[in-house]
Amino acid sequence: MGNTFVSIIEIIGTLAFAISGIRLASAKQFDWFGAYVVGLVTAIGGGTLRDLLLNLPPFWMQNSIYLTVTGIALVAVIVFGKFLIRLQNTFFVFDSIGLALFVVVGIQKSLAVGYPFWVAIVMGTITGAFGGIIRDILINEEPLIFRKDIYALACIVGGIFYWGCYTLQLPDEITQSIAAAS
Amino acid sequence: MGNTFVSIIEIIGTLAFAISGIRLASAKQFDWFGAYVVGLVTAIGGGTLRDLLLNLPPFWMQNSIYLTVTGIALVAVIVFGKFLIRLQNTFFVFDSIGLALFVVVGIQKSLAVGYPFWVAIVMGTITGAFGGIIRDILINEEPLIFRKDIYALACIVGGIFYWGCYTLQLPDEITQSIAAAS
Amino acid sequence: MGNTFVSIIEIIGTLAFAISGIRLASAKQFDWFGAYVVGLVTAIGGGTLRDLLLNLPPFWMQNSIYLTVTGIALVAVIVFGKFLIRLQNTFFVFDSIGLALFVVVGIQKSLAVGYPFWVAIVMGTITGAFGGIIRDILINEEPLIFRKDIYALACIVGGIFYWGCYTLQLPDEITQSIAAAS
Repeated sequence: MGNTFVSIIEIIGTLAFAISGIRLASAKQFDWFGAYVVGLVTAIGGGTLRDLLLNLPPFWMQNSIYLTVTGIALVAVIVFGKFLIRLQNTFFVFDSIGLALFVVVGIQKSLAVGYPFWVAIVMGTITGAFGGIIRDILINEEPLIFRKDIYALACIVGGIFYWGCYTLQLPDEITQSIAAAS
Repeated sequence: MGNTFVSIIEIIGTLAFAISGIRLASAKQFDWFGAYVVGLVTAIGGGTLRDLLLNLPPFWMQNSIYLTVTGIALVAVIVFGKFLIRLQNTFFVFDSIGLALFVVVGIQKSLAVGYPFWVAIVMGTITGAFGGIIRDILINEEPLIFRKDIYALACIVGGIFYWGCYTLQLPDEITQSIAAAS
Repeated sequence: MGNTFVSIIEIIGTLAFAISGIRLASAKQFDWFGAYVVGLVTAIGGGTLRDLLLNLPPFWMQNSIYLTVTGIALVAVIVFGKFLIRLQNTFFVFDSIGLALFVVVGIQKSLAVGYPFWVAIVMGTITGAFGGIIRDILINEEPLIFRKDIYALACIVGGIFYWGCYTLQLPDEITQSIAAAS
């Protein structure tokens, strides 16, 4: 059950991050392939680096859903493009949701492999933040996250919050919901 | 025999990609070391990421030929520099050849490790395209591949073509030649 | 004892590289989180890529000292900021020290895993140079190392020097000191 919950938040996070990447890529007049790649890298880049560092098989190579979800995001941006562009706030929300969800997944995976909590916090931050950093490198901009304290704090606060819940032995699902919401 | 064939196309692809990287680096007035590194990364970057994701030892660490070939490419660009710069079309051809060859190698390696075909297609695309993407990141330009449908299509068409041949159980060498040519 | 020596030079190198990254990030008006990440990536980026390529667990995940040292570097830059900025030469020295030390560590680790010497030289160069390259990518500049022969030569000369000492069977500590000094 814990696993199902993680899967669901991973997929929502993937969708949120993919849309953020595809929107920025289209703003740069990338073609559909470029937009898809940037969306995909935004969505899976952080988790891929985490899995490489933890010496786990990359999560997206086990299940084609992440590529499919990015495809859906691409279609969504093409169909609802103008509508999405107007919603600057939604964009920000997408980014934040993706970030929070991915931090939680990153922390859990690291603890599961037996790493101490400080490594888990770093892995959570990498999972959440690195996708957006690669996105900004690919579109040749300075990484947005380095200029907005708010993202970074979200990562770390979320992580520490998670740790608080974890040590209090709260059930997994509650812990994850609280951490992601914070 | 299949292995020898793969080695040969890997070396030609390496040469083609290294020349493309070295030429762009010299155009940016990088020094010889910078040009060599950019050439090398263009040539081996995609395959290295593929091997990391597949958890295989990086191919270029098993055999020094890839470093040697990049050195030869560097000398070739220094000696025939002006001549090469005039041949814009050849440059394009080099890039396309490298791309097609590397896609085939990436697909084969992934299937050999037991991954399903959709992973192999992604790995083929990574092998073919990622070197050029890192090259463009290093010279601080927006990745060329994201603006030219033709490259991306070449990757995917080549991959699907390969799959067609593969399922028809054609001999390996023929399959590879057709896929690379397409 | 050899291990302790390696640890000490790794830590000094980390401090030197972290300061170089944090200074460049502050010059770009990154916030404290951005500066910390750029400093950390400059310090551990090269060694992380080396460990991934050698299929070793990333060194900084075994011991929290590298994150702590980067934190100290951040505080140092904040407290002594103006003072540090005036010392352009010291900055250059920091960079060179970090580079030389990391090259030696990279070579040693590769030989320890059983790779031939040419792989060790490449790994040494990656350990020394790659952190600075990622730093420059993150701050969206063309990598400095590609324009200054001196760094590159330092890497390679240091490496070959190390090899000379190594084949002469000099004791480890002496070898490392000479190589780093050169």
